[in-house]
Amino acid sequence: MSTSTLTQRSLLGLKDMAREEITELLERAGYWEARPEKLTPVLQGKFVANMFFENSTRTRFSFEVAQKRLGAEVLNFSAAVSSVQKGESIYDTVRTLESMGIDAGIIRLKPIGVLAELATRVKVPLINAGDGNNEHPTQALLDLYTIRKQFGALQDLTVTIIGDVLHSRVARSNLWAMKKLGMQVRFCSPPSMAARELDVPYVTMEEALKSDVIMMLRVQLERHENGEFESAEAYREHYGLTVERAASIAPHAIIMHPAPINRDVEIDDELVEHPQSRIFQQMQNGVAVRMAVIERALG
Amino acid sequence: MSTSTLTQRSLLGLKDMAREEITELLERAGYWEARPEKLTPVLQGKFVANMFFENSTRTRFSFEVAQKRLGAEVLNFSAAVSSVQKGESIYDTVRTLESMGIDAGIIRLKPIGVLAELATRVKVPLINAGDGNNEHPTQALLDLYTIRKQFGALQDLTVTIIGDVLHSRVARSNLWAMKKLGMQVRFCSPPSMAARELDVPYVTMEEALKSDVIMMLRVQLERHENGEFESAEAYREHYGLTVERAASIAPHAIIMHPAPINRDVEIDDELVEHPQSRIFQQMQNGVAVRMAVIERALG
Amino acid sequence: MSTSTLTQRSLLGLKDMAREEITELLERAGYWEARPEKLTPVLQGKFVANMFFENSTRTRFSFEVAQKRLGAEVLNFSAAVSSVQKGESIYDTVRTLESMGIDAGIIRLKPIGVLAELATRVKVPLINAGDGNNEHPTQALLDLYTIRKQFGALQDLTVTIIGDVLHSRVARSNLWAMKKLGMQVRFCSPPSMAARELDVPYVTMEEALKSDVIMMLRVQLERHENGEFESAEAYREHYGLTVERAASIAPHAIIMHPAPINRDVEIDDELVEHPQSRIFQQMQNGVAVRMAVIERALG
Repeated sequence: MSTSTLTQRSLLGLKDMAREEITELLERAGYWEARPEKLTPVLQGKFVANMFFENSTRTRFSFEVAQKRLGAEVLNFSAAVSSVQKGESIYDTVRTLESMGIDAGIIRLKPIGVLAELATRVKVPLINAGDGNNEHPTQALLDLYTIRKQFGALQDLTVTIIGDVLHSRVARSNLWAMKKLGMQVRFCSPPSMAARELDVPYVTMEEALKSDVIMMLRVQLERHENGEFESAEAYREHYGLTVERAASIAPHAIIMHPAPINRDVEIDDELVEHPQSRIFQQMQNGVAVRMAVIERALG
Repeated sequence: MSTSTLTQRSLLGLKDMAREEITELLERAGYWEARPEKLTPVLQGKFVANMFFENSTRTRFSFEVAQKRLGAEVLNFSAAVSSVQKGESIYDTVRTLESMGIDAGIIRLKPIGVLAELATRVKVPLINAGDGNNEHPTQALLDLYTIRKQFGALQDLTVTIIGDVLHSRVARSNLWAMKKLGMQVRFCSPPSMAARELDVPYVTMEEALKSDVIMMLRVQLERHENGEFESAEAYREHYGLTVERAASIAPHAIIMHPAPINRDVEIDDELVEHPQSRIFQQMQNGVAVRMAVIERALG
Repeated sequence: MSTSTLTQRSLLGLKDMAREEITELLERAGYWEARPEKLTPVLQGKFVANMFFENSTRTRFSFEVAQKRLGAEVLNFSAAVSSVQKGESIYDTVRTLESMGIDAGIIRLKPIGVLAELATRVKVPLINAGDGNNEHPTQALLDLYTIRKQFGALQDLTVTIIGDVLHSRVARSNLWAMKKLGMQVRFCSPPSMAARELDVPYVTMEEALKSDVIMMLRVQLERHENGEFESAEAYREHYGLTVERAASIAPHAIIMHPAPINRDVEIDDELVEHPQSRIFQQMQNGVAVRMAVIERALG
């Protein structure tokens, strides 16, 4: 589905977003990051609903801070919906909030394909805060913003995304956007966590450590009961960013992670606030990026 | 208990509210619906607490949007309280919030009779957002508003409320208000779901479909384990508003439902957004109606 | 740990706070209580996060009202964390919110010692809303404020804190502050609920009832499975403030309780709103006290 069939200002994913539009959002995030005032009530009188059908703390807070910094009124809805549940109850909730007069909705949900259909059935702009293992566009935008801030430009940088790419919407949104922006993306993962349908080269951990950007993913071993690893320790040994491995990355390279972090599983505790880590800066940048996305939806 | 013994501006139910007062609230809701601005901060500096001792999404959101459109500060409290729990813990919570300086409280609870007593023990106005199977006055007001908007006047219209009237506070609040306003109210329900203590005629489904307003109720079959119906399909067959049945309603008639909806149980999926359905308009009108009610409590 | 090693404006406890600083906070609370306006937006554009890693209703609401009366933007986070869970997940959440730009955090948590360490690792001021059985400084400040309002001064007043002092952070914060302020503090508790490490005399119930201030604590018998009492009735018989016992307190004495109350266990139902009870006034005063504490953190 191309974005042109959707409400103009929705943000469902980066796969179908033009390179120029991505760049404009990053520019605008820079504008918001640079403003000294915390409150800029350009969205006063606008109502935004955060509709989280899947648990979240970090992402919801990031959106809420962004919304409040823009002066919008915020409504928080949260109710975990099982992945097997039909889309109808999600639709009814979103339509209900639309009827009550919200101007935009931020939405996170598990069932795959529901969001795209939803966007064709409601009139308010929807912003994807994570849908199944499909896309998480604002996370990828804040990752891109963080990388650009570090390196000045994105073109030709090498990025390796390490871990459970199979279940990762972060990996997908980043892959699609980074390719458009001329970056060299590679995945590194055990066979059981690979996403074979995606057109991307796989590299070894040794090769991964030579990248400009080393992006770790959260691993959930309970999703891989018959996988290669008997324990978190075994995973760490093969695919974790350990202190020992981190010692071999380039001095200019940076370490990223979308959080929440499993310390001492995919990344060692000591590396979370390592000088080359940008993990908490990613969270900081997320607010400015989401201000740009919300402003675009409602501006 | 007559309203005169209660805090002047509480809204505990419609049973004891004068016809003129109901009409005034509907008029005022019309005022709020017509205003182009979303924010009219007439209640700036007022604190309103939404105290939901029974789960709710729709109603709480509707109140919250209404409160924020009026510029009030909103506090959300939600904790399911079992129906057997004594009223004392509810009282302590409400008194606590009163001590902290709230100016009005919206309250939903299960135990019957607790709200009326509560209103005599606290000084802030209380607005009933649903108490047991007793009353749900703002739902009935938004139903009346929706009907009046459709038909211009209420006098002499026929309404049939279909389904589990026994457990329905929506049916009770509507019944009491509609009678005052000169409407012809009938119920249609299986014997196990009838409310025999209420003075209202029962009609068959065939007769019900001839009404000006066909108001479906949410059915919860788990409340009727020894009832007439073995399944949702059996209920639908006898008391559901099916596509087939809907084909026989008058062209000017409207279909209503307080939501949340059990699609394909009490109403067929295809009818929810049928041209004659007013279900999402009801939700839309709810905000304006609640603005009028909150303004009355605090104005 | 002395307060000087912590962020200047954090409030982690009263044990290390100077007498003068406590007095200043009480004075400032008096200023806020006396203001006729509900909203005084001195903290407009400031973001405050309420981070409750342990369930709470009362305390969170009190902080939220205080924050909104000062015009701050409020973010509510609540997730029960088990007492055995390591501090790292709490740290990650607080650091995340700090990264997103909050200006202060209110924090409640169970694990002992985590808060003090946390305060050395983040840069935003933290206000303790209850940590384990260590301190609950704003509760003690509102207790002191309530007592001072009643008696005009604090010096030489006798206070007996009755009940489960072993598990009580309220008892500890009060003890440490009251001693600094020249009050005579005594504890009264069954042996299994005594806090032997604290330097405070224990008295009998008979003696306790002669105090100027009789401060009851919430008892949770499930924490004392092998204790002296087989039932709530047995506890009440020995350590409850019954109507009979209350008849013997001095006419000028006051009854206090931090709430939530177990009616007819540690205090009889009829005494909760007795003329000599200050229980709901404590809650009222809590808002003004917390305004003073938040203003100090951010002003």
